[in-house]
This record gives sequence, C-alpha cells and structure tokens, in this order.
Amino acid sequence: MAGLVRFSVSLEKELSGKFDALIRKRKWQNRSEAFRKLIKQELIEEEWLKNEEVAGAIVLVYDHHRRDLLHKLTHLQHDFSKLILSTQHIHLDHHNCLEVIVVKGRPTDAQRLRDALKAIKGIKCGSLAAASTGERIP
Amino acid sequence: MAGLVRFSVSLEKELSGKFDALIRKRKWQNRSEAFRKLIKQELIEEEWLKNEEVAGAIVLVYDHHRRDLLHKLTHLQHDFSKLILSTQHIHLDHHNCLEVIVVKGRPTDAQRLRDALKAIKGIKCGSLAAASTGERIP
Amino acid sequence: MAGLVRFSVSLEKELSGKFDALIRKRKWQNRSEAFRKLIKQELIEEEWLKNEEVAGAIVLVYDHHRRDLLHKLTHLQHDFSKLILSTQHIHLDHHNCLEVIVVKGRPTDAQRLRDALKAIKGIKCGSLAAASTGERIP
Amino acid sequence: MAGLVRFSVSLEKELSGKFDALIRKRKWQNRSEAFRKLIKQELIEEEWLKNEEVAGAIVLVYDHHRRDLLHKLTHLQHDFSKLILSTQHIHLDHHNCLEVIVVKGRPTDAQRLRDALKAIKGIKCGSLAAASTGERIP
Repeated sequence: MAGLVRFSVSLEKELSGKFDALIRKRKWQNRSEAFRKLIKQELIEEEWLKNEEVAGAIVLVYDHHRRDLLHKLTHLQHDFSKLILSTQHIHLDHHNCLEVIVVKGRPTDAQRLRDALKAIKGIKCGSLAAASTGERIP
Repeated sequence: MAGLVRFSVSLEKELSGKFDALIRKRKWQNRSEAFRKLIKQELIEEEWLKNEEVAGAIVLVYDHHRRDLLHKLTHLQHDFSKLILSTQHIHLDHHNCLEVIVVKGRPTDAQRLRDALKAIKGIKCGSLAAASTGERIP
Repeated sequence: MAGLVRFSVSLEKELSGKFDALIRKRKWQNRSEAFRKLIKQELIEEEWLKNEEVAGAIVLVYDHHRRDLLHKLTHLQHDFSKLILSTQHIHLDHHNCLEVIVVKGRPTDAQRLRDALKAIKGIKCGSLAAASTGERIP
Repeated sequence: MAGLVRFSVSLEKELSGKFDALIRKRKWQNRSEAFRKLIKQELIEEEWLKNEEVAGAIVLVYDHHRRDLLHKLTHLQHDFSKLILSTQHIHLDHHNCLEVIVVKGRPTDAQRLRDALKAIKGIKCGSLAAASTGERIP
C-alpha cells in the first residue's frame, strides 16, 4: 500500500509481553495500530501544551429556571462566536439542562470561555474536553 | 428569601484579600456566590470518585473516509444505548469529523465506552469531559 | 483574634447540607476551615496557570543497573541546579530506585526538567506533583 | 543481544514524520526507545486505574509555626506507617516547609492518606505524584 513507512522496532521480551497484554485488553487491532494510537495521543497533548489550534467541547450543567441564566449564556456565547462551532442542548430532567459547546481555536481561548461560562450565577458545572481539529493528526 | 441558610465565616485578613482578588478575576458575583461555586466543584469531583451517577460528554475526532469506521461507531453506540443520551456530529473539514456523545450513568461505564470508542481503527482522539446530572448539586 | 476578617455567607439550604456532609467526610474542622481549604486549593491552581513561582516534586523510577543512567541523571540535574532544592533517593528493591527531586521555580521550567529527565534511556516513570512555595498562600 | 524481541511496524508516512519530529523534540534516542517510553507510560496509568500496588509521593506545604500541626502530621503518618517509605523535609523560607512523603501501596490508600493530610488545619497544599514500584515495568 502506498504511503506506508515500514521499520523495525526492538523491545525487551518482558516489555513486549506486557505490551501485547495491553493490546488485548484495550482491543487494539495489532501492534502497529497500537503504536499509532499512542503516537496520536501524544501529538494531541503537544497541541494543547504548545497552544496550537485545537478543537474541544465545553460541557455545562445548569437549572434553566434560574432567572437571566439563559440570557447571559447566549449573550456570552455571542461574544465568543468566532471560537464556537455549535451548541447542543439536552434536557436532563425537569430542572437540569446539559449544554455542549463545541469550540475550535487556541487552548487558552477555550479555557477563557469555560471560565467565563462557569462564572455565570447558577451554572453548576463547566468542564472542558480536550480534542483536536484532526488537521495535524494523520 | 426562603430556603437560605446564613452563617458567618472568618478568614485571615491576607487570605480574604487574595480571595477577593480571585473573585474579581473570575468575575464571580460576590463571596457567597464564590463559595457556592467552590463547593459545587468539590461535590462533582466526589460524584466521580465515588462512582455515583454522573453525566458527561465523550468527544471523538476521526476521518469519516475510513472504511467501516462509521459502521463500527454506530454499532458500538447501540451496545451502550442505555448510557448514551444523544450524539452530535460536526464537520470540521473535508476529512475530519468531531462527534460529541452525551452520556449519563456511572463514571466507570463512561470510561469503558470512551476506551472502546478510542480503540476503533481510525479514531484520532477520544476525550471525556466530567460533568454532573445536576440532581445532587443544588 | 487580630488579623481575622469576619463576614456572613448565605447558601441554599440544600447546598449547605451537602457542604456539611462533605466537611464531615473530609474531616475538616468547621465551615471556615473548609472555605480556607477550598480557597487555597484554587489559589495554587492559579499560580500554576499563571506561571508564577511555585514549588513541586518530580518523582522518577528507574533501574540503577542501567549503564550511564546515574551519570546522565546527575549531569542533567546540574544543568538545572538553580531550579532544584534537593534530591531524595529510595531503594524500592534490588533493581528499582525512586528519586524525588524537589523544585522551586516557574511551572514551565519544572515541566521542562521533568521532560528532560523522562527522556533519559531507562527512566521508567517521571511524574510531577504541583505544590506551592507557600509565600502567596496565607 | 539476548532478551530482545524484534518486529516490524508500519505507519502512514505523515504520521511517521510527525513521530520523528516528536522524538527530536523530546530528545528520545530513537524510535524503539520512543515506543518503550510510550508503552511504559501507558502501563503505569493502568496500574493506577486497576488499583494495583504502586509507588508515589505526597507533597505537603505548611507553616511550621502553626500550633499542633507537626504533632498531628507525625501522628497521622504513624497511622499509615505501612504505606510510608520515607519522609523528606525542606525549609522553603522562614515560615514555609515542604514535606515529601514517599508511599508504596494501593492507589486508593495513597489517596486516602493525602486527603487525611490535607484535612489538617494549616496545611496549604497536598498533592500526589503518581509513580510505580517499577516491578511490573520492565
């Protein structure tokens, strides 16, 4: 197959055995696929550390009965509209809403938005999942 | 106002000054609201540590051109259908998709689903944001 | 007592009950002490985020039989001597050593040292515990 | 050399290029050594998740002028004496002490000790670095 690089790797016997056990446990397809997973994981960590363009999701939980909360949430999201790709709203129960805000931009901006959202009175929880745009992750 | 408990707190002068600076920086409304935020944050951490029912979101990034990937993703999500509340799909670019899977259930189950999704060949990234159902967070 | 600021806080009844349960569970002395803990925790997180001067400890695990490893470790620590306060060495078993390197300086420098130490062939583990100099934490 | 397993790995050309750049940046020796590092990192994460026997270090910061603090610290450490391998004490300044407590045992016990230490009045910071006994990490 075109576009593949093939090289040989040497591991201590014992480490190789542990690695194979880990592959079975995680249900990875084979050693090559396992190495791809480990490399990609490390590359995404680098993107966040180096403040490169990333993607991610901010998860908020709040009681929508709180006065002004929805208004403030919408207002703030418009201030960060360049960062925000989409918003999804889930009704957890009669009171609680979960909102997922997908962002694309610099990690520091994503963190700034999360902090601003968390500061709104009535927000119970604001959590940020670190992901990638995928562009620099082959 | 009904339902409020009022009590007095004493802080060392210097700590109180640092706290007020933090409140301004985070744009929290006032000291009471700041304490509410800190308590709620701690309560949600407890929910995850004690494996109580929580909510969260798994963020995946992948190239949708990968053969079988979409099929495997859907298949796996059906195996965990009791855990999954909703799925949102964002087209990041011609190749890359970002998918947000909102989950409600035990932390260990959410982590198991994340690991199973990450193991699919072609998934670049699988990240879990820890949130809450809000039910036990007043 | 001199140097104490006293103010009143209002919490929703339910949140106050949850807070008291948390205080019992964590064995904190009383509400004021609990608030002090939560504030200090948040202040130290800020120190690390803002790259202020902090303290911390890097924990390494390695097999001391590895040729050149001890030499490289010592050499590298001398390159970072301004950052390092002390080193403690524990014999875990016949092969494995655990070394704790206490650092004081900027978070980015501490992370750079940890990465450099982890890169040495034979190092099994390099972990950084985030702490504080205590100077800005009353 | 005896005890080495040699096998071939295939990576997409682009991913292989990114991997080589990461190896240069982290100053890893070569691809085999890089894979060893990534595997070991993953194995240690597994030890903590599966609550296997691990090693680690708890870092405390406190003002030693606080009455009873040293007494309580010592008392508590004796309650956990089976878990604790050694303690190192550093004088950060006239007021602040940093104490590193090296532990070996189950992750849940290490976390319980950290929480108990953090609960002592006057402790400014209690942080746990996750490491390994090295026994199951070849």
